Amino acid sequence: MRYGRIPDEAVRRLPIYLRGLLFLSEGGQQSISSKDLADFLSVNPSQIRKDFSYFGVFGTPGVGYKTETLIKQIRKILKLDVVHRTALAGVGNLGSALLAYPGFGVYGLDIVAAFDTDPKKIGRKVSNITIESSSKLGTLRRRKIDLAIIAVPGDSAQKTADVLVKAGVKGILNFSPCYITVPRRVKVISIDIAMDLARLPYYMRAG
Amino acid sequence: MRYGRIPDEAVRRLPIYLRGLLFLSEGGQQSISSKDLADFLSVNPSQIRKDFSYFGVFGTPGVGYKTETLIKQIRKILKLDVVHRTALAGVGNLGSALLAYPGFGVYGLDIVAAFDTDPKKIGRKVSNITIESSSKLGTLRRRKIDLAIIAVPGDSAQKTADVLVKAGVKGILNFSPCYITVPRRVKVISIDIAMDLARLPYYMRAG
Repeated sequence: MRYGRIPDEAVRRLPIYLRGLLFLSEGGQQSISSKDLADFLSVNPSQIRKDFSYFGVFGTPGVGYKTETLIKQIRKILKLDVVHRTALAGVGNLGSALLAYPGFGVYGLDIVAAFDTDPKKIGRKVSNITIESSSKLGTLRRRKIDLAIIAVPGDSAQKTADVLVKAGVKGILNFSPCYITVPRRVKVISIDIAMDLARLPYYMRAG
Repeated sequence: MRYGRIPDEAVRRLPIYLRGLLFLSEGGQQSISSKDLADFLSVNPSQIRKDFSYFGVFGTPGVGYKTETLIKQIRKILKLDVVHRTALAGVGNLGSALLAYPGFGVYGLDIVAAFDTDPKKIGRKVSNITIESSSKLGTLRRRKIDLAIIAVPGDSAQKTADVLVKAGVKGILNFSPCYITVPRRVKVISIDIAMDLARLPYYMRAG
């Protein structure tokens, strides 16, 4: 089945639904109503129904959605049904935390290589990955690595992005606090942790 | 001025606009059109205009928005115009990266205390903060700390959240890969880094 264009906001929400569904599925839940899923995730049930309708999924009244089927469909839409070989650039505190993070596998993401410029780090093993010299980033294409995570200091982020693009990477998750510029064919998602923390005070009650 | 309820999706976007505006303001830009801001942030200009209209801000045709004024207004709406004293629970790799992160201050967030259960870490200084024993989390209320970041392993996240809530915390940024349950008066924002990475393949071109 081919899907039409799904709004970016819906694409942003799909992984959240997926995570909730995986959690419920592990707990043995075989079907779920949009209301129960919405309650579980603290989101709006009509939003969920609307988002699912973009790819032609409609629940059965009184039964809801089949958990397993929905998981498969969301994975397919997000193209998480194939494993993406992913490289990490920068093995500082954040990079080390990412290497140790157990949650990526569930989403079809496999960090298979890590790079750093620090000679003291090169050759060391972190979470079963041997750190390589950043001068080896050019090998990504040959190794069929098409996703990369940038966790280098801000002042070398753009330079790293340039090398990654040249090495054939098609998607970048940027954790550096800087904007990076890439050709249109490459998709960048920038994560600024402070962005999320900055939403908190708005919701906090006074007093 | 009092504002009506702003949709959550708009609240999520405001910090992104703020970051862009701060960046442009530092570069000396005194006014900006919604189109230029949209181009800079790779978002939709009509979305920007709509989001700003929620709090009564309308650009001047041919001139746009005054950068400084807009920064002040967004800060006020997000309640970032007062500094929030913030505690960090868990000083592993991720916690250490958060302590070293320079970006929080801009958003009125000040990490003033860090806690861990590991006796080897307690008393050590990381980024000018002396790590305290987690048994001291009860002191937060007295120290007027009302925000907290959870960066502990998943299996102790709920227990940590319970202690934080009891200590008077009103907002929690949860980095653990687990759901945490808190009373309604406390706002939780959960960050699952894999959620963001999971959106990337959707946008990547085939081939």
